[in-house]
Amino acid sequence: MKKRFFTLIVFIFSIALLIATVVADEGMWPISEIHKLALRSKGLEISPEKIFNPKGLSLIDAVVQVGATGSFVSQNGLIITNHHVAYGAVQAASTKEKDYIKHGFLARNRFEEIPAKGRTARITESYRDVSDAVLSVVKEGMDFAKRTKALEKKIKEIVAETERKNPGKRAEVAEMFSGKTYVLFIYTYLKDIRLVYVPPRSIGEFGGEVDNWMWPRHTGDFSFMRAYVGPDGSSAEYSPENVPFHPKKFLKVAPEGVDEGDFVFLLGYPGRTYRHRTSHFLAFEEEVRMPYVADWYAWQISVMEKMSEGDRAVAIKHLSRIKGLSNTMKNYRGKLKGLKRVRLVERKRKEEKALQNFIETDENLKAEYGNILEEIDKIYTQRREQAEYELILDYLRRSVNMIYFGYTAYEAAVELQKKDLERESAYMDRNFHLTKERLQLTLRNYYEPTDKVILKEMLKRAAHLPKNQRISAIDNLIQDANPENAIDDFIKKTYSETRLNETQFLMEALAKSPQELKKMKDPFIDFAEGLYPTYQKLKEVQKARKGALDKLYSKLIDVKKKFLKKDFIPDANKTLRLTFGRIRGYQPADAVYYKPITTVNGIIEKTTGEEPFDTPPKLMDLFRAKDFGRFESPTLKSVPVCILYDTDTTGGNSGSPVLNARGELVGINFDRTYEATINDFAWSEDYSRSIAVDIRYVLWVTQKFGGVDYLLKEMNVLNK
Amino acid sequence: MKKRFFTLIVFIFSIALLIATVVADEGMWPISEIHKLALRSKGLEISPEKIFNPKGLSLIDAVVQVGATGSFVSQNGLIITNHHVAYGAVQAASTKEKDYIKHGFLARNRFEEIPAKGRTARITESYRDVSDAVLSVVKEGMDFAKRTKALEKKIKEIVAETERKNPGKRAEVAEMFSGKTYVLFIYTYLKDIRLVYVPPRSIGEFGGEVDNWMWPRHTGDFSFMRAYVGPDGSSAEYSPENVPFHPKKFLKVAPEGVDEGDFVFLLGYPGRTYRHRTSHFLAFEEEVRMPYVADWYAWQISVMEKMSEGDRAVAIKHLSRIKGLSNTMKNYRGKLKGLKRVRLVERKRKEEKALQNFIETDENLKAEYGNILEEIDKIYTQRREQAEYELILDYLRRSVNMIYFGYTAYEAAVELQKKDLERESAYMDRNFHLTKERLQLTLRNYYEPTDKVILKEMLKRAAHLPKNQRISAIDNLIQDANPENAIDDFIKKTYSETRLNETQFLMEALAKSPQELKKMKDPFIDFAEGLYPTYQKLKEVQKARKGALDKLYSKLIDVKKKFLKKDFIPDANKTLRLTFGRIRGYQPADAVYYKPITTVNGIIEKTTGEEPFDTPPKLMDLFRAKDFGRFESPTLKSVPVCILYDTDTTGGNSGSPVLNARGELVGINFDRTYEATINDFAWSEDYSRSIAVDIRYVLWVTQKFGGVDYLLKEMNVLNK
Repeated sequence: MKKRFFTLIVFIFSIALLIATVVADEGMWPISEIHKLALRSKGLEISPEKIFNPKGLSLIDAVVQVGATGSFVSQNGLIITNHHVAYGAVQAASTKEKDYIKHGFLARNRFEEIPAKGRTARITESYRDVSDAVLSVVKEGMDFAKRTKALEKKIKEIVAETERKNPGKRAEVAEMFSGKTYVLFIYTYLKDIRLVYVPPRSIGEFGGEVDNWMWPRHTGDFSFMRAYVGPDGSSAEYSPENVPFHPKKFLKVAPEGVDEGDFVFLLGYPGRTYRHRTSHFLAFEEEVRMPYVADWYAWQISVMEKMSEGDRAVAIKHLSRIKGLSNTMKNYRGKLKGLKRVRLVERKRKEEKALQNFIETDENLKAEYGNILEEIDKIYTQRREQAEYELILDYLRRSVNMIYFGYTAYEAAVELQKKDLERESAYMDRNFHLTKERLQLTLRNYYEPTDKVILKEMLKRAAHLPKNQRISAIDNLIQDANPENAIDDFIKKTYSETRLNETQFLMEALAKSPQELKKMKDPFIDFAEGLYPTYQKLKEVQKARKGALDKLYSKLIDVKKKFLKKDFIPDANKTLRLTFGRIRGYQPADAVYYKPITTVNGIIEKTTGEEPFDTPPKLMDLFRAKDFGRFESPTLKSVPVCILYDTDTTGGNSGSPVLNARGELVGINFDRTYEATINDFAWSEDYSRSIAVDIRYVLWVTQKFGGVDYLLKEMNVLNK
Repeated sequence: MKKRFFTLIVFIFSIALLIATVVADEGMWPISEIHKLALRSKGLEISPEKIFNPKGLSLIDAVVQVGATGSFVSQNGLIITNHHVAYGAVQAASTKEKDYIKHGFLARNRFEEIPAKGRTARITESYRDVSDAVLSVVKEGMDFAKRTKALEKKIKEIVAETERKNPGKRAEVAEMFSGKTYVLFIYTYLKDIRLVYVPPRSIGEFGGEVDNWMWPRHTGDFSFMRAYVGPDGSSAEYSPENVPFHPKKFLKVAPEGVDEGDFVFLLGYPGRTYRHRTSHFLAFEEEVRMPYVADWYAWQISVMEKMSEGDRAVAIKHLSRIKGLSNTMKNYRGKLKGLKRVRLVERKRKEEKALQNFIETDENLKAEYGNILEEIDKIYTQRREQAEYELILDYLRRSVNMIYFGYTAYEAAVELQKKDLERESAYMDRNFHLTKERLQLTLRNYYEPTDKVILKEMLKRAAHLPKNQRISAIDNLIQDANPENAIDDFIKKTYSETRLNETQFLMEALAKSPQELKKMKDPFIDFAEGLYPTYQKLKEVQKARKGALDKLYSKLIDVKKKFLKKDFIPDANKTLRLTFGRIRGYQPADAVYYKPITTVNGIIEKTTGEEPFDTPPKLMDLFRAKDFGRFESPTLKSVPVCILYDTDTTGGNSGSPVLNARGELVGINFDRTYEATINDFAWSEDYSRSIAVDIRYVLWVTQKFGGVDYLLKEMNVLNK
């Protein structure tokens, strides 16, 4: 469950394009709703106001968005999050000579800290409901694409005005209930983030892809970073003059950890759930989209692994991408297994049948809601029909770096001709620098041989699409030739002539008008120009589809409320949520019980000496010497490594603080179990379990293995 | 943990050649010792005399050897044992058209039963200690090979005399304590055994090699056979006139099954354990023999699987052999993992050091026992030096069918010239028919292309042995030629000329003198003649080694008794043993707990539709309909499938009845857990767990799936 930096950027770009959010039964509670929860009766030992207090300081002020979630753990801006959240930055700082992924990174004092490239820390300053203002632009009978565009435009205007009134801040509008409720958030972004302590891969990523999404887990998935600000205390880019940021609030660390059955809660930014989508959506995901994407990712991974063989420098270029693809692939496969296991589509169909029966008992209901399910069905049927066409267009830009570079350059030239507020989000003044950073990050790991192989496969697939779903730019390059030969010729020519692999050339291209761009004569920019009308047409189709679904899903919620006579909470949408539960094991299969706390003994059991089970000898020695210090669990007689709990999480909860009944830090969330990958579609009392690295392991590794006593002193775990 | 028919034969042949048996700490109790166990205080609810009563009938009279262990469960000779114990006979009865392995075999009444080819049922008639008689031939200062031969000869004489006095019975002498105690058993062998009900492979072998040696398990590893005797009640070969055998005693079936924590005990014929061997033996096994054999088996399996591809008839020929090889391979790999995990060699070395220290504190002890460990070390050092040479000679005869045929024919010709009592056991009149049957069984599944590939590999390995370990017959066939070419030529010529693949020719060869044999001009018989002196020399070396080790191990036990001040029970040696314990789970890895009872729910979870997880649709339907009848566990709300318990078992315990505190049948033992494969070397409170199919699953499948009500009536589970 790794969330990488681009997630943040994708989020920023897509916030105004949110796919319909619907409601969830289960426990990702919007922070403003937690007073309804009677948390004290459930085990919380502090007042809920200590967690969230709109009128003063509370625990949420210590929680920060650093790609995924992080927490301040000292008054000097020390942030704890996952190893995999810092991964991209650690990789960016690594070279063949200084491989911080492999060996870890350790600043023995503040002055040895190095920039965490591409990382920012987002702090929530305030928020308010803006539903009325947003919805004021929707008119009865509007066509669906127009409706979507009008909402997007209004949100952009609200954001622009807010940012004008709050210089240096960023505004974002989150859609809570699809087509119903919108909340405006005002954020500060800290831009000077530095690496402090990152354990070696053999600890931070112990178990690697084998153990990813698995329990029992023994991964030390944590890292420390620090936020800096300018000498005047305001957000600033990296500078040696900058000083540590002083957060309004930081979390108290609980070195005594937790036991089985203990109450815990998490704060974090869960990404996206789809719990109230219909069976039509789920069947499309199960039968069409997820199998296609999982296979496509598996294919790309095998290409990259082959390319990486025997060359560490090439391997490092591919590492982060392979990690991201594998992660999604395994997640999808877990979901596919889970969907089958719990027969979710079948269950949904039964629920929908019951709902339809309810609707048809009453003429008024029938008039208002009678055809909702039928209409939704129609939309997904149509979507199925051109699914591969859309998937190929989507992955052509996402999987092939050169198409991504060329298309972004061409689209930028078109968009920059428009007024700021009318542009696609990625090209608005407030976002364009992030778009450029993302391109540069991709270019840093660009590897031509891999890109060629992937483009060839995509073009071959496109060449086999049915007649009514042709992509004209691709048809043009093939014409009457043998497709395979034409594709080979095209690839040979374009890659030898393009200069988009040069940072300067790429950045120059991003400042041109369409006419100027034409003169640069880059084959991938020219190819992008040919693709542009196809993508524009697809965007129109998708906006109309979203508009139609938004309206239908919004009505569906209304009638479901009437039918089930209960309220719902919104699906996860990357806004701050609280979820609570207990340290608790589960039964993954007949006759198997997984206990909720692993220990260092399990690391020793799994260690083979070969990656990803290559525990550092020093850690083995500490274990053999039973040098557990104060971090030994009295019941387990060893140092706990990971903990399991039945709270409700999803992607984006990576790095979330796990807090005990007193609101103290006992773990850093980093994964879910394989069985819990279907959390995105449904929550299960039996299977939904999330995984954190235990704070005792974090502290033990940091002190005994890393030898970084000063961090424990800074967190008040050791006396100064 | 499959024991096939040849195990029985190997046993019969090797009983007089038993490798030194030493003593065990743990619980495979000789049946005559169980009065020392205070079983009632441990949970037994019946008198121990109900289990074993030398003066009358008891439960042991219902236990029978049918390759591995079986039990009588009706007064009409109905035997229950494992599916894998019947496997060879089911395979032998199968053809491409009537595949009883795949579809199972079902006799709807007695008259539909078919012969279980190659199966016999051994019933113990009586036994007595013959140690004094056996040891009377050993003289002080005898050389080691002579000592071994003298003991072998004496045992043969005792057997011959006993059989002369007990016509129709077979006598066998079991070495209990190496070089110390010998017990004479008198057995009746029932020869007309028939198949009654064998579930399809998809039940009886559900999980296949994937689940073999694993828990949680969902294999319905049971079958029913029936023993017949002549109309006069005496043992007889198959005849339609035969009548069901009436056992002296049969087991009562307990359809209510067991619960976690319940007391259970097993009766059976555990094969061989090595618990008191020294570190030298274990290090040789761990470092040399087991890795070599596991790799060699893996290689053979891959050859056979390749040969079987796409041709079911060829696949059927290989099935049983692949099964046997895989089973041993996985067992060895489990042992290798276990030895490493518990650091057994290291532990043994420490114990031996302590023992040596003890010996050296006393001059008398030192004089008597001071150099035992050093001498044992020397023997294994020498064995290591020529390990590959011995392994190649061993597997040349075992893995290559043609060498096995040719060598047996040649050796038979030589041995049959001798007086009966002086022959190798396999060629004595009382055993020779079994030797022939075994050859025929092998010939039935002979497949020339596989045999050629395996011979080629063996010859290539032999060609690479060091100069002082050459096999002259193989050197002769290569001479000065390029080894690979010479081997290819040899194989081409021999396989095209040999007639040993014809049953009649092979059987004729077994009746010839060496001179007559020569005239048959079969290339593999001629090759065997060339190999004969090498094998004879090796046999001498091995007998001398055994003699030396017997004496050393015997003294080692004496001094260990003095040191540890306790008694030991003999290692398993295929004689009847009792072991007891409780239904109990275990922790196979950090944070994982395995519960001790699986259910049909787990079958559904594992079912993929693909072999070996291709549950029959009818069983799925029975599950979905919750048609559990009286076999549902009230606590688990499903039909239990397999049970786990902490008794002490090893190979040979396959088919052992698992009995509850009242001595009623609650399961059929068929496997151990992966972690328990090291039972052969050491027993572990934490890991040693054995696996049975639950009697409730046996009865549920037999009644509801098989529809064989009459068997349940015969076992008094249903009213007649």
